[in-house]
Amino acid sequence: MKPSPKSRRRAPMWSSLNARPRPAVQPVSAVAAPADATWLEPPASPIDARPDETLRDQAFRNERLRDDALQTAVRQKPDALHPLTRAEQNRQLWAYETRVKGAFARIVPTLRAIAARQHAPDFERSAQESARAALGFALPDDALADAWVDRLDMRALFAHATFETFRAMSTDYFTADPLETHPQARDFQDVLLRCGFHAMNVTPCADGRLAHTISYVLRLPMGTVQRRSSAGALFDVEEALQRWEAVELGRFREGVPNLADAPTRYLKVAAYHYSSRDPDHQGCAAHGSDTRAAASAGLAQLRAFRLAVENTHCCGASIATLLIGIDTDTDRLRIHLPNDAGEPDLDRLVDAGGLYRATAQLDPESARTRIREAIARPRDGGPPPEAGMQDLMAKLIENNLSQIDYVRTYAGEHYPDAGHQERFIGVGTDFEEVHLRNLTYFAFMRTLEEGAPNLDVGIEIFRRLNVAHGLPIPIVLRFHYTGQVPGARERAVQRCARIAEAILKRYPDLAERGLIQTYWTLRDTSRADPIECVGSSLPSTWREV
Amino acid sequence: MKPSPKSRRRAPMWSSLNARPRPAVQPVSAVAAPADATWLEPPASPIDARPDETLRDQAFRNERLRDDALQTAVRQKPDALHPLTRAEQNRQLWAYETRVKGAFARIVPTLRAIAARQHAPDFERSAQESARAALGFALPDDALADAWVDRLDMRALFAHATFETFRAMSTDYFTADPLETHPQARDFQDVLLRCGFHAMNVTPCADGRLAHTISYVLRLPMGTVQRRSSAGALFDVEEALQRWEAVELGRFREGVPNLADAPTRYLKVAAYHYSSRDPDHQGCAAHGSDTRAAASAGLAQLRAFRLAVENTHCCGASIATLLIGIDTDTDRLRIHLPNDAGEPDLDRLVDAGGLYRATAQLDPESARTRIREAIARPRDGGPPPEAGMQDLMAKLIENNLSQIDYVRTYAGEHYPDAGHQERFIGVGTDFEEVHLRNLTYFAFMRTLEEGAPNLDVGIEIFRRLNVAHGLPIPIVLRFHYTGQVPGARERAVQRCARIAEAILKRYPDLAERGLIQTYWTLRDTSRADPIECVGSSLPSTWREV
Repeated sequence: MKPSPKSRRRAPMWSSLNARPRPAVQPVSAVAAPADATWLEPPASPIDARPDETLRDQAFRNERLRDDALQTAVRQKPDALHPLTRAEQNRQLWAYETRVKGAFARIVPTLRAIAARQHAPDFERSAQESARAALGFALPDDALADAWVDRLDMRALFAHATFETFRAMSTDYFTADPLETHPQARDFQDVLLRCGFHAMNVTPCADGRLAHTISYVLRLPMGTVQRRSSAGALFDVEEALQRWEAVELGRFREGVPNLADAPTRYLKVAAYHYSSRDPDHQGCAAHGSDTRAAASAGLAQLRAFRLAVENTHCCGASIATLLIGIDTDTDRLRIHLPNDAGEPDLDRLVDAGGLYRATAQLDPESARTRIREAIARPRDGGPPPEAGMQDLMAKLIENNLSQIDYVRTYAGEHYPDAGHQERFIGVGTDFEEVHLRNLTYFAFMRTLEEGAPNLDVGIEIFRRLNVAHGLPIPIVLRFHYTGQVPGARERAVQRCARIAEAILKRYPDLAERGLIQTYWTLRDTSRADPIECVGSSLPSTWREV
Repeated sequence: MKPSPKSRRRAPMWSSLNARPRPAVQPVSAVAAPADATWLEPPASPIDARPDETLRDQAFRNERLRDDALQTAVRQKPDALHPLTRAEQNRQLWAYETRVKGAFARIVPTLRAIAARQHAPDFERSAQESARAALGFALPDDALADAWVDRLDMRALFAHATFETFRAMSTDYFTADPLETHPQARDFQDVLLRCGFHAMNVTPCADGRLAHTISYVLRLPMGTVQRRSSAGALFDVEEALQRWEAVELGRFREGVPNLADAPTRYLKVAAYHYSSRDPDHQGCAAHGSDTRAAASAGLAQLRAFRLAVENTHCCGASIATLLIGIDTDTDRLRIHLPNDAGEPDLDRLVDAGGLYRATAQLDPESARTRIREAIARPRDGGPPPEAGMQDLMAKLIENNLSQIDYVRTYAGEHYPDAGHQERFIGVGTDFEEVHLRNLTYFAFMRTLEEGAPNLDVGIEIFRRLNVAHGLPIPIVLRFHYTGQVPGARERAVQRCARIAEAILKRYPDLAERGLIQTYWTLRDTSRADPIECVGSSLPSTWREV
């Protein structure tokens, strides 16, 4: 049962009220009704007394980002939507994005207001009230209590607030399933199998502007679809091979998701990106903003993986591959068609933007038919994809039409933030709860020794975004472990500690001034539980707040 | 066709003559006849003019190690051997050990003699003659040519000679199969399957005194038996699980080594060690020389791995486990019997030393029967192992009797080198060609970030062994890759470069004085080829010598 749109609960969304176990049959989405988005409630404190609407609009024009085009865009008429656009889903996704980004956006003004009053009488009580009301959590008592001696350590409080906000978002994701991933996952598993694929593993670029690829751009459910972000979409072939082996063993041993003798394939997707608005500067940094180079590199990696499977395993082992491109200004999708050998062809593609325009005036079924024709009978007369792949491509294109309208509705012709605006750096192997554009710079690694080049780029970005303003760089570490494997949790904790230490050593100029702060999180993949914080560069007493 | 024992080839064993591809059917062993051991030929140079016999005895009493007990031991009568001891195999193993260790032992005296003559007329020619004759390879011309200006860089030459000797040993192993691993591997695969196991994976301690566990102590063929050395036998459970998955997938997909529905199991063996002579100081450093702690830790790791398999995979997935202990002074083996739950029991064991004495006077068949009885009907009346495991244990005990005699014959009551006497540090994932005791300190790692604690111990050891005498620490890096996986070789080269850089950063006091030298090697596991050197801290021109 969904909560009434009118209901307003006062508890912050990560309280025990909301952190209840997700119902097995029909999950309640925390964003289903915007009014359930408790972070949007009128704060009790005057420092943040803004009506809901203001707060919601705030998401894309926080203190860093102002774009007047946005205001116009938000008021765009819904009747301008494409006939296949799922308007209600767009509203839900928008509510989720606004709620989460709004929470991060409130950190600086809230702390700023608190800082201004640090020598006022009754400071501690009023500061905590402000924090609870605006941020949803209290600040560490000892940090406030000692302010009269010297002054508040705003850097540490900023990092603390960022980490707590991340934790609230993460816990919400794992306990309330705000993107309704679970019910979608079951349906999409069936679709995928009908298309002839027993697994779908997508590698978008690690760039923060691609972090929403799965849930927003492609509208696919995590879980059924595996994500493996990697800088420049240059995923680790050895790791991909191991993952393939694990999936195949699951089919042989357990018949999951289907029996090994079913004629389905493992699908690997590489997603490169480009900027239609400023292609020479805002494309993929890993490939020098050269769209063709980015696409070629993705293709080469797909080929390497396919050859690795074919040459390492006998008996006709192979995989299916798919190359897609995403315009980071509009989230428009392009899908590459196969060449005569069945491999993605760099020069043959269907573009969701073109299909949007070509089908915008049709009724839904005619629009679907037109899309399917564009894929099944390519205009250049070249080879079409296999039948199952045609179905999947058509679904991806149709899904992307909703996202094109999402951007048009809420951002206008293009996103206002063409460049980096991330709030924190994620370091580790995966952040399955991160689904928002430009929220997280992600540096994939199991050790800094291997992943340092990725993190270097992120640190440079945050020197501009945060350090230039005196703010520290918040780094969330994250590793997965399987709770059923004895000792696995302890080893994951050690991994966090090792990487945190290595990070401080690598950037001593920042570390010495407290301008790098780390927050160590783990998740047990054998359970549905939320993440656990197992350490931090901040005082350990702060974590119990 | 084996070469005649009288034949004497002048070519060093890593020349093109000996580096020929191994014959497919009947490999020629380079140690089958000691006379084929070309490193034992009378050197052409007077500086090293020693008869073969002297050289052979030299192995255990090089310039660092003198133990008068050895001389007596070597002269022990062969009729004192146990009836089940394979005397001919012992002679072959001894010839191999002497040959390889002799080559390493000749480095210092040879370089010393060369250093003494560096300002003599005709130095370069005579130095190269000495080097070729005594070491089997020439020294870098440019190093010798510049000696008159300042003086020879003996540190660099020492490292160079160590690396070249390692390379010769390694190439010999992969091209000439000196331990006759290949024919043994086929036979043992059958034995193992008959015992009910489709794979056997052994983790000895990374300690150099356990490096000969597979080929000498247990007399098993590498290849069929997988080795995964790890400090304190504390192997990586996640890695072990991945390896298990790969083996099981091979059975399902390819029926290798047998079909997945055959009722065989994967056997994991942990080998802890202790010192009978000085148990409180020369036991396992990782467990504070506490034998029971070492055994308990091995058992706990086996249990963790078993639970990981059982809990991660359904459908009755499990493994068999075996705990063994090795006395590093005598190479005596102890095998733990199971408790009521079928797990190795710390307090129940059969000891090869006791069985040696109890059966030394019997004929071979009676001795075998007695050994089998000790396993099948334990004296304490407790549960016996399962039938297949009984067969395997009996085989391991019988194999170990040969090794007990090996030590008695060539070293006496115990090894003269109770402590560390390694010649180089091995860093990386595996050195399948290293089968000699106290030759290599092995630090398993894929990154220094993860493996630093292991290497720290090795560096401390080599500060005493080498740095105290002004000699550098030679570190051989080694990673495997699959040549069939596109880009895998390049990634392995990058891994070497990263680790080499990290090592220099970690020990700056040594690095600045040239007291750490690295040699980067790769091996393509998809081919039978020897290792390839892809880099070094020494001048690149030296590698082409």
